[in-house]
Amino acid sequence: MLGRGCTAFLERKVLLTSQYFRNLSISSTLEPEKPLVKTDVPGPKSKALLKELSSLQQAGSVQLFGDYNKSIGNYFVDADGNVFLDAFTQISSVPLGYNHPEMLTAFEDKQNLQELINRPALGVFPAVQWPNRLKNVLMSVAPKGLNSIATMMCGSCSNENAYKAVFMWYRNKQRGTKTDFSPEELTSCMLNQQPGSPNMSILSFEGGFHGRTFGALSTTRSKPIHKLDCPAFDWPVAPFPRYKYPLDQHVSENEKEDAKCLEQVADVIEKYNKKGNPVAGVIVEPIQSEGGDHEASPDFFQKLQKLCKEKGVALIIDEVQTGCGPTGKLWCYEHFSLPSPPDVVTFSKKMLTGGFYFNTEFKPPHAYRVFNTWMGDPGKLILLERVLKVIKTQNLLDVVNESGKVLKSGLHELEKEMPHLINSVRGRGTFLSFNAPTTECRDKINSDLKKNGIISGTCGELAIRLRPALIFQPKHANIYLDILRKTLKSIN
Amino acid sequence: MLGRGCTAFLERKVLLTSQYFRNLSISSTLEPEKPLVKTDVPGPKSKALLKELSSLQQAGSVQLFGDYNKSIGNYFVDADGNVFLDAFTQISSVPLGYNHPEMLTAFEDKQNLQELINRPALGVFPAVQWPNRLKNVLMSVAPKGLNSIATMMCGSCSNENAYKAVFMWYRNKQRGTKTDFSPEELTSCMLNQQPGSPNMSILSFEGGFHGRTFGALSTTRSKPIHKLDCPAFDWPVAPFPRYKYPLDQHVSENEKEDAKCLEQVADVIEKYNKKGNPVAGVIVEPIQSEGGDHEASPDFFQKLQKLCKEKGVALIIDEVQTGCGPTGKLWCYEHFSLPSPPDVVTFSKKMLTGGFYFNTEFKPPHAYRVFNTWMGDPGKLILLERVLKVIKTQNLLDVVNESGKVLKSGLHELEKEMPHLINSVRGRGTFLSFNAPTTECRDKINSDLKKNGIISGTCGELAIRLRPALIFQPKHANIYLDILRKTLKSIN
Repeated sequence: MLGRGCTAFLERKVLLTSQYFRNLSISSTLEPEKPLVKTDVPGPKSKALLKELSSLQQAGSVQLFGDYNKSIGNYFVDADGNVFLDAFTQISSVPLGYNHPEMLTAFEDKQNLQELINRPALGVFPAVQWPNRLKNVLMSVAPKGLNSIATMMCGSCSNENAYKAVFMWYRNKQRGTKTDFSPEELTSCMLNQQPGSPNMSILSFEGGFHGRTFGALSTTRSKPIHKLDCPAFDWPVAPFPRYKYPLDQHVSENEKEDAKCLEQVADVIEKYNKKGNPVAGVIVEPIQSEGGDHEASPDFFQKLQKLCKEKGVALIIDEVQTGCGPTGKLWCYEHFSLPSPPDVVTFSKKMLTGGFYFNTEFKPPHAYRVFNTWMGDPGKLILLERVLKVIKTQNLLDVVNESGKVLKSGLHELEKEMPHLINSVRGRGTFLSFNAPTTECRDKINSDLKKNGIISGTCGELAIRLRPALIFQPKHANIYLDILRKTLKSIN
Repeated sequence: MLGRGCTAFLERKVLLTSQYFRNLSISSTLEPEKPLVKTDVPGPKSKALLKELSSLQQAGSVQLFGDYNKSIGNYFVDADGNVFLDAFTQISSVPLGYNHPEMLTAFEDKQNLQELINRPALGVFPAVQWPNRLKNVLMSVAPKGLNSIATMMCGSCSNENAYKAVFMWYRNKQRGTKTDFSPEELTSCMLNQQPGSPNMSILSFEGGFHGRTFGALSTTRSKPIHKLDCPAFDWPVAPFPRYKYPLDQHVSENEKEDAKCLEQVADVIEKYNKKGNPVAGVIVEPIQSEGGDHEASPDFFQKLQKLCKEKGVALIIDEVQTGCGPTGKLWCYEHFSLPSPPDVVTFSKKMLTGGFYFNTEFKPPHAYRVFNTWMGDPGKLILLERVLKVIKTQNLLDVVNESGKVLKSGLHELEKEMPHLINSVRGRGTFLSFNAPTTECRDKINSDLKKNGIISGTCGELAIRLRPALIFQPKHANIYLDILRKTLKSIN
């Protein structure tokens, strides 16, 4: 009996007037009570639209077409009128669910609208409001100890430009007090040759995902399909811990795993330094969010930071997927109690704008070094301002922690009940995942979940990942768990 | 007597109600009659804001802070209330000027607003409206003969992903009927090694600019400041024609220049093919828009295309700056009468969204190959739809051609009058430029223009570039020319 209350919901005219929305809290009365799947998934309308889209582009990755006039809160409505509880939220990029009143009214303010449509080249003619917007929005949630910010437009672009800032910092250290470029550098860089285009590298981890443009892609190590046929830099890779679960029963094995990985990081840095391709930065996700939701312990991250400092290498924390609250803290790395701030923190997705935080020493001494035409998008900061306000006023980090507890304990119960189907429950907040025994089984669970009204995501070879919005409440967690149980039982 | 009418304009309350705007044509009665500069440039308020911004980031490239509530049409108003005629328009990225009524009303439509704020992962859950939007907006202006489209978010990202599509196409040609990847490819790519991460290259031209992320940057050859300290791929570069002006007096020299450059392109392709780093694509701007506004003849482009076809190399036309009308045609390469369409055409800036057009053969056979979380931004297509409608209904390409004629003939007069200050007037439509004898002199002209109420841009070593909006009319051209004359005379 999925979908009680849904028909009424769908027949009701959704009144998207701003006044109406202003009165709503996150426990929106407009949300349906449960999912409702009425057709095959994908249904006939989604299939027809896919055919249309496929005539224009490679659309093999498209799962469903969304009806974003009807989607609401935690519920995604598709072209065929099917209603799904969304625990994937556009690859983890929707902070407040669909049609949130604060978002719908953001551009009623005339000045906001003008900032949206008069998009400036932020590096040359930013708006009068811009310095304050950076301060009041992005710097209000800056990782502790980082005092500078660069805005970008997506995760790849944020990482690419963070790498550039790190390379410039590294070369400036080598230059010492001399800040000018040599004639050899000036001419050789135009030919993509040393010393102007130096051999330098960014170390990343097996299973890491950092984007798909050529610099970012050279650090992405999640799946071949992302990388095949693309030229890549000779940049080094080191293993990331692969833990055994439950964690409390495998303490010493997992500690050894940490030590083994850290030793390899040290070795690889030495090897690349020796071969004339020095490691300027290490990039790491707090949880490997695309490569399989692999976690590492606070101790691992503390020791990694210590190692980076010893080797004179910048530590870049990639919070593109983990940032903005889903782990129960605004930045996931806050769980690690690092003794000093990371050197660079990159973000995108739920933050709506891309960008990275850094410290004064990573500010390039010359202008036009980390630069592009738009340098971000003021319209996204206007929306982010609302997101951060709602997170604060509605204590959404508490909601995340509460819902996360319900979800995680429910998942633990399920892995006890059906250990042949799910194992290795892990994660923080609602940023959770579990493994199936095989890729085929995992894919079947995920696709059956969809038929039963739940959108989850997959990652790595075995994992199903949960990426709900920050407004996902314990009641939604219980619906998720009920449907997951039914789904697993039908596979059983 | 600059600025007649400006004070009245500034004192008048700008009524930005949509009804009011709907009644306006491009010859907006809200525009001031002329520029008005009341303070130093930058003025005290811009200076104070710059200090604030510099505490958060490297802001050395910032020229002025914009008051986008007051800026209107072709006129940019800064923080200090100075009014400039804008002939640079945010590095050529503003198609319809400031606060255009069609843009201000775009999100009054509820469905448009919902598409803006419910931003989907377009490669996975696009909106029901998306296939039609692509057809009605982007495909309605597709370069003739190109039937496919990928949306992206900025120029760099568009080029990076075009390179990926080209590399995949090239490798697929090598694979022949076999579309699967070999076990060696699958494992080696995870280590950034051949054959999975093959040595392949994109050829670009001296003076070309194609973006600043690592793949794009490896093809950018405009200025060292963009490239220094960044690792780069070993990708080849060939000379781009450097013409003598006026063109009609240097026909045979310029033809020889074309031939010399094309010969080098052929040589470099052979050289790179032989050394095991084959050239998969050539990227070229129709006018080198950042490297110095260098043009090449239709004959050069026709022969370049022929050469690419002979060598089995994809021809990518980078229309990021030239696209969307400023040269008097929607795509600048239409001026070249190519016998067949280019393989790929990339765009951004005035198109408001990034992306690239291509043909079926450049569609990767597998899904998730040219992919990222957002794959563009539906909100930008809603604005672009309005831009294209205005271009059509108000015949803005005719306006561009008409204003371009006034500008170009005026610039020719000025180079006759003051050949010691300006020379080599060139370009198409209002996408025009001229050289000064030295970089110092060029910079002085540009900065004095600003003091006199004109924002122009510089490019390359000697050029001042004009990049007005498409609503720049002959009357604006005459204001530009008057102020340029006064500026030059005061330097004289």
